[in-house]
Amino acid sequence: MAERFIASYLIGETDYETAKQRALNITVEQTVEIPRDIVPAGYVEDEILGRLEGLEARDGGHVAAISYSMDDAGGDFLQFLNVLFGNSSILQQTRLIGLKPSPALAEITPGPRFGRAGLLELAGAADGPLLMSAIKPVGLSTADLARLAGDFALGGMDFVKDDHGLADQKTAPFSERLSACVAAIEEANGKTGFRTRFIPNITAHRGGTIERAYEAKEEGAGGVMLAPALAGYDVARQLAADPDFGLPIISHPAFSGANVVGAGCGFSHAFYYGTLQRLMGVDAAVYPNFGGRFSFSRAECLSIVDACLEEFAGLKPILPAPGGGMTFERVPEMQDAYGKDVIYLIGGALIRERETLVAACRRLCETVRAG
Amino acid sequence: MAERFIASYLIGETDYETAKQRALNITVEQTVEIPRDIVPAGYVEDEILGRLEGLEARDGGHVAAISYSMDDAGGDFLQFLNVLFGNSSILQQTRLIGLKPSPALAEITPGPRFGRAGLLELAGAADGPLLMSAIKPVGLSTADLARLAGDFALGGMDFVKDDHGLADQKTAPFSERLSACVAAIEEANGKTGFRTRFIPNITAHRGGTIERAYEAKEEGAGGVMLAPALAGYDVARQLAADPDFGLPIISHPAFSGANVVGAGCGFSHAFYYGTLQRLMGVDAAVYPNFGGRFSFSRAECLSIVDACLEEFAGLKPILPAPGGGMTFERVPEMQDAYGKDVIYLIGGALIRERETLVAACRRLCETVRAG
Repeated sequence: MAERFIASYLIGETDYETAKQRALNITVEQTVEIPRDIVPAGYVEDEILGRLEGLEARDGGHVAAISYSMDDAGGDFLQFLNVLFGNSSILQQTRLIGLKPSPALAEITPGPRFGRAGLLELAGAADGPLLMSAIKPVGLSTADLARLAGDFALGGMDFVKDDHGLADQKTAPFSERLSACVAAIEEANGKTGFRTRFIPNITAHRGGTIERAYEAKEEGAGGVMLAPALAGYDVARQLAADPDFGLPIISHPAFSGANVVGAGCGFSHAFYYGTLQRLMGVDAAVYPNFGGRFSFSRAECLSIVDACLEEFAGLKPILPAPGGGMTFERVPEMQDAYGKDVIYLIGGALIRERETLVAACRRLCETVRAG
Repeated sequence: MAERFIASYLIGETDYETAKQRALNITVEQTVEIPRDIVPAGYVEDEILGRLEGLEARDGGHVAAISYSMDDAGGDFLQFLNVLFGNSSILQQTRLIGLKPSPALAEITPGPRFGRAGLLELAGAADGPLLMSAIKPVGLSTADLARLAGDFALGGMDFVKDDHGLADQKTAPFSERLSACVAAIEEANGKTGFRTRFIPNITAHRGGTIERAYEAKEEGAGGVMLAPALAGYDVARQLAADPDFGLPIISHPAFSGANVVGAGCGFSHAFYYGTLQRLMGVDAAVYPNFGGRFSFSRAECLSIVDACLEEFAGLKPILPAPGGGMTFERVPEMQDAYGKDVIYLIGGALIRERETLVAACRRLCETVRAG
């Protein structure tokens, strides 16, 4: 028998027997996908079929613990995700909230290469918080974006990333922007002694995401950012698993939102922006901060932090990177919520200070690091 | 000025002024992602910034029509999707329901290579419905699965696909299964004169989806199936755009469900399983049928059919492929709902008749085609 891993689903049903039937349906739906009474005896029934391991009343419904065999996944990361939540993602009142992997998970994903400790080391920091900003808006020229990148670096930000909307637009094509921003940041680092790293957005069509990752490495980028919900859920893992790549990976939540904001369905915030990111080999996960333009609550954000940092299957802890609507005024509130293990992503509020950007960054960095 | 395309969002807000403010926020969120008052004048404000073109009360809220420049997408399909719904996918009570593309869409995606007409021609049918079944469950040996494929073909099904959970498991590795099923179906076709086509599941990690697509072609498969929500939203488009590939593409909804089943958020059923599929170059879209194991209503399913078949930007109409819980008894109900332009996906109900599968398929095909 192969090792088994256990997924937890919150089933929005208070009646035990009904919840149990729905849980048993999931054991079939996620594996054999034929009626239970015609599942072949032997290997298929004993090994491949999902197994209801527990069912308990919780959170206004029932949490079902269902185990699957590593043979279901057949060594493929996407098939592993498919077993966890392929068809059942279409069920209402059914939410994927947890995973207890088996040791054989290591055959499917190595997890993050850098994680929290690696990112701190690259940033030359004994501890966090770290700071990240984004060059934007789309439509600026390469020269303007590179100047912005240089100023962020002079101001002492740890990471300067592309806005997630910067792709290969004619005003600032990917390769040109990459070289110019790396050069601007290197020049700034030469003056300041800081170690600011440039993180280009590599999400691209025609298989270009992987190509741009290696181009970024060759050109001296300090990491890469991609949107897994657009580019696919195996791209980060593929890069994280490749020792020849060796750059940190930051994920962006673009196109992913509906996976978590629908009531009762989809993924818990913690699973999607925490657990799944670590499975994918992501080193820092961007997600919308509470109190900003999006609807995530403080509790939901802190559940993401826990899922990024908690002991999980021997995979490295990673850094949560809350962003969206962060301002200077909110720094104390953020510090209170997040403590040290966090990357603050601050974009618009700094760009508002464009005329005195370097000084504004310095002020922000000092405030945050004094924390 | 570049051409503009218009996305429609259903904003779940009855107050006009509040809905308007939320719509204006989307124009910013999806493009410049900096506060409106610091958007640079000139090209960025005039071209890149989203533009609210209309706002009308509908469906218990307001529908906002927002135009974006093709310059926002910069020729990249994933960035085009990102502009449509990247960050705004994270908003509650905000649903992407429509797209009016500009002629320049052709630079971003060619759409489906075969579509409805091409699939009918490949199947040698003057009109539909077409029939598709799936070999399963995971855990059967290659020999057993190939026998099943052969029997489906002897029974006259137009397409025999892999179950979406069949990846590269040791009991039936991809390459071995592909060859065996193609051979079994060819042998059956030789006896019957039918033109049954085998559709392997090519979804795979390590960039393997594209590799398996070409392997499928070389081995004589009749098409490929993939799960875009797992493999990424550009894989089908990449294959559809490649004249050297030239096989039909069927999409599977695995891992996609939370994008549509959350109330008020995500995508409309029609957009996700219809419009988006055509943009991706998919020729037939599998989705959960009404009255089966999932919650899609008859009206939601028929909205998908409309989005598959209606005139849309010069892209070929495609075939909807409802599946999940289809039985012999439901054929009249299906015929009433779907008419001729449909692929019926029937799996479990046929496998239940394993001992007399060929006869069961024949009976089903005759009933359905007699329509």
